[in-house]
This record gives sequence, C-alpha cells and structure tokens, in this order.
Amino acid sequence: MDKMWNKYDDVSNELKAVVSLMESNIKCKDKKIENSIKELIHSGGKLLRPAFVIISSHFGSYNPKKVIPLAATVEMLHMATLVHDDIIDDAKLRRGQETIQSKYGKDYAVYIGDFLFCVCFKILASSSTLENIKIDSNSMSRICLGEIDQFNSRFDNTLSVKNYLNRISGKTAELFSLSLYVGAAESGCTDALCKRFWHIGHNIGMAFQIIDDILDYTGSNDSIKKSAAVDIKQGIFTLPFIYAARKNKSFFIPYLEKQIFSDEDVMDLMLLVNKYNGVDSAKQLAHKYTEKAFKLINKLPENPYKIVLSEVTQCLLKRTY
Amino acid sequence: MDKMWNKYDDVSNELKAVVSLMESNIKCKDKKIENSIKELIHSGGKLLRPAFVIISSHFGSYNPKKVIPLAATVEMLHMATLVHDDIIDDAKLRRGQETIQSKYGKDYAVYIGDFLFCVCFKILASSSTLENIKIDSNSMSRICLGEIDQFNSRFDNTLSVKNYLNRISGKTAELFSLSLYVGAAESGCTDALCKRFWHIGHNIGMAFQIIDDILDYTGSNDSIKKSAAVDIKQGIFTLPFIYAARKNKSFFIPYLEKQIFSDEDVMDLMLLVNKYNGVDSAKQLAHKYTEKAFKLINKLPENPYKIVLSEVTQCLLKRTY
Repeated sequence: MDKMWNKYDDVSNELKAVVSLMESNIKCKDKKIENSIKELIHSGGKLLRPAFVIISSHFGSYNPKKVIPLAATVEMLHMATLVHDDIIDDAKLRRGQETIQSKYGKDYAVYIGDFLFCVCFKILASSSTLENIKIDSNSMSRICLGEIDQFNSRFDNTLSVKNYLNRISGKTAELFSLSLYVGAAESGCTDALCKRFWHIGHNIGMAFQIIDDILDYTGSNDSIKKSAAVDIKQGIFTLPFIYAARKNKSFFIPYLEKQIFSDEDVMDLMLLVNKYNGVDSAKQLAHKYTEKAFKLINKLPENPYKIVLSEVTQCLLKRTY
Repeated sequence: MDKMWNKYDDVSNELKAVVSLMESNIKCKDKKIENSIKELIHSGGKLLRPAFVIISSHFGSYNPKKVIPLAATVEMLHMATLVHDDIIDDAKLRRGQETIQSKYGKDYAVYIGDFLFCVCFKILASSSTLENIKIDSNSMSRICLGEIDQFNSRFDNTLSVKNYLNRISGKTAELFSLSLYVGAAESGCTDALCKRFWHIGHNIGMAFQIIDDILDYTGSNDSIKKSAAVDIKQGIFTLPFIYAARKNKSFFIPYLEKQIFSDEDVMDLMLLVNKYNGVDSAKQLAHKYTEKAFKLINKLPENPYKIVLSEVTQCLLKRTY
C-alpha cells in the first residue's frame, strides 16, 4: 500500500478490503493468469481511483458492501487500460516492474486486459445498479475513444491545445471523475453534489496528467525522460511540446515535417521544449486546473473526508515539477 | 444478410433490427472509428448468435424491446473477440475482407475491441437485467480464459483431446450456449428450459468448431488450408491433428520436438494428418455432438421456432466436410 494512505486509517483499511476483493475475483484455474494479475495488483499503484470512490461515498450514507466492490471495479478498469496501453506503447516497464506484455507477450496481454474488463462488469452486476453499470460503460467508451484519438493524432502538426485537452480528458480525467461520482451516487448524495464530485475529479485529473507530462521533461529520473522520448518518437506531442512549438514554429517545423525521428532529433526536440518555455506555460495551465479543483473541494459540505480529499489532492498536484 | 435467413421472414426482420441497433450504438464523433466498425458489422457474418437469442426467446413471452438489444450485445461480444483474435493471429483477412488490425494497425484494433466491449455493456445496462449482465460477463470471462488457454497450450506435446475440447468449449461453444440461454431467460422460460437451451448451444458450438477445424484440412479453398497452416505454425493443434498424432506418434514426434516449423514441416504435417485418419476420427466426434444437439432440440416444446432451430442447425452442421 502506498505510504500516502498511512495517515488515514479508515481509507487504508477500506483499500485493503478493495485489494482482497480484487484478488478473490481474479481467482481462476490457470495459476499463471492469476499470478500475473496479482503481480499487477501489488505493483505499487497508488490506488487513487478506488480511494476517490471511498472518499466521496462518505458524503452520503456509506455502505461498505456497495462501495468496496464499486471501488474495486474502477481500479480494475484502470488496470485493464494499463495492460492494453502497454501493448500500444510497447512498454517494457510499468511502475518499475516488467509489464505483462513484455513478460508474457502482447497476445497474452490482450486477453488479460479483456479478462479484467469482464471481471469488472461481473463485480458491478453482483453488487451495483444498472445505473452505475451504464455510467461505468459510458465512461469506459469515452476512455477508449480518448485512447484511439491519441493514436490517430500522432504527428499532429496542428499542435492544437484543445485537442490535447480533449485527449487527456478522455484518457485520464474521465476515470478520476467517474470514481468520485459513483462513490457519491452509490451512497445517495444529491445530483448536485454528485456533479460537483464529477467536476472535482475532472480538474484533478487534468492537472494530474499535465503534471505527468511536464515531469517527462523535467524529471531527474532517467526512466521518466525516456518516456518523453518514447512519446515524441511515437508522434505523441504533450502540452509542454505543443506550447513551445506553437510559439516557435520556425525551430520546430523542420522536425515536424518528418514522421520518423532519429534519437538525435528527439534529443534536439527535448532541448527545444525546455528552451522555449514549453514547461513553464504548461505549469501555468496545470496550476489553473489545480486551483479550480481546490475551489470546488472547498465548496463541499463539511465532512472529515473533505480534509482527506483536500490533502490527497495537495499531495498529488503539488509534486515538485 | 446471409442468405440462410431468407426462408425465415420474422428472424430476418428481427436481425435487421439488431443490425440497426448496433449501428446506432457505435455512432461517435470520430467517423474513422464508426466506419471501421460498420465495415465489420456488414462484413458478411452469419449473425448466428443474435439469431439464436431471437429463436429461443420465442419459446417464452417474446418482447422485442428486450430481445433485440440482447441479441445485439452477443453479436458485439463476438465482434470484440474477433477483432482481438485477429491481433493474436496476425490475420490479414476475415470473411474475405481486410481485418481491422491489418488495415489500421494492432494498436487501433486493441482499442476498437475494447470500445465494442464497452458498448455491449452499455446496451445491456440500458435494456437488460443485472442477472443477464452477470451471465454475460461470466461467459465473457470464460471466453477470455479459453483464449488464454489456447495461447498457453501452443506446442502442447501431450496432445490431450480433453484439453482441446475444453479450449473450444470456452472459445466457441460458450457464446452459442449464452445466446440460446439468455434469449430463453429474458422471455421468462422455466429454468429447466433455459438449461436445455444452454446444452443445445454447447453441442451445436462444439460440433461447429470441430467441423471448422476439419475444414481446415479438407477444404478445397486455398485460404482455408492456409489457415490450418497458420495454426500449425503457431503450435495450435486442432482435433484432426491430435487424433492423427496420438495414434501415430512415431511419425509425428520428430516434428513435435521442434518449436519452430518450416513451411516444409507444415506441409508434411498436413499430409500426415490426412494420411493417418485424423480427419475421419474428428468427423466421428463432430457427429456425436451433432446428434446430441438434435436429440435435445427434439425434446423442446412444440413451437414454430423449434423447426427454425432444427433447420438452421442442420444447415450449420451438415456442411460438406
């Protein structure tokens, strides 16, 4: 369990129940499959999304029998998308551990992702409502469409900030929104409160992804920088790149006209992004989303979990970058 | 629409409604995605699974508002697995048309399959019951596990008939069973009748897959033979191969000890399978499943759709092979 939950005994205990529930639902005859998913469950993810379900559900009449399964499903949806994303990115490592696609092959990873989707809907059908399943499957469609959009937008020379924001809205913010929303909805919060949670999730998610994209350029860790290089090579231009390139097209155009970047091109482009303030401009936008998230959190009804949400958001969005 | 439905006006009209419903549910802003799925919908599949839902639902109190969406979801589950299977098989063609993975790339195909899964659960949540969603997601898990099992069993020198039957039970028969079962369940048939439909689907599905695997060895069509060759190269040994190799191990062992087969090896193996009665023995087992299916169909209550099911099964399982 990530140390960020140590301070919060209740959340921490509930997250342990989420992990147990996931483990019991992926049991199957084939121990190789079971173990590969167990590794994924214990690979050191922050369990942010299930924690969000738990936190928002405490604003209504909290029922662990409903909330723990719901929290498990959002984490499993997240895991399924990670497994499939790693296929696309041809990623060798995830959270410092070898990915399923690297360890067992792409073919295996396709089916493990599919299996996780199925288990997720199985849990939902056993413990939730048709309404939640509808919301979950709608969100998941949007996440898939976001991923396809990112794939189709490779080498997008228009460098549109709007398109980038749309993409990360689907790819990252959607699942944050969903988590905070379904927790509140399941525990009978008013529509207005549920919607507020949706917006909080959206703003946290947007800031979180922009910061992630910034860290790719500023992080001291070699593996992080490598990830920015991989993105550029695949033609995925994130916010720092887009901002720098929009303002200084003449430097970027010779590169953008190519569709294949050499390692040297990538190094040049990374230096250009830092030189032309791509990172600083992206930080400003991340800051705007962060402020918006806190403003909305402050408007939540008084509740011990309001402080938890505020502190967790602080911890997530005030990372050094 | 496949010409096998021309004789049955009602089923044919209901299948048209299924196709329309699928089309309206895959609408999205990105026309490339929408069109690639439309191509798949109209690529000449027999629509067997949705037809099975429709047929069995007529044994209870038929409600098109419930049945058409349910029929659409089983076809979409089927389509999702096809798209992902083609990734694994690196298939260039499906039903004579270029596959999504070949046309748009593997990455795109991963997400299109995921999107189809989501749409499928979205339709279920809008029109069905938690019970059906549970049954559907359970079936889907078994299908995924069957696919993973097939993948893990490559180059399986034990040549176990039982393992082969388990694999095709998950990979093919499960969705046939599910289709006949959910149609009956949704229209309020008794548990016993629903279960009978499940068994009918199982036996039809088993016979259907064995016949498919036989046709790979006996078909006159070059593309079919190619598919057997691809299977062998990937180390997927189907029933005709298993029967022939079990009875004549000495001829097969020198090949089975390799894990990489040359084109010449594959040609040799295909000749050996035919020479050593692999096809004949497989035909006998297909015949047993076919007889079982007809026996169970005959026990169904009298109903005009009993004849439809019987004729369709006849048409499917009495193919020249």
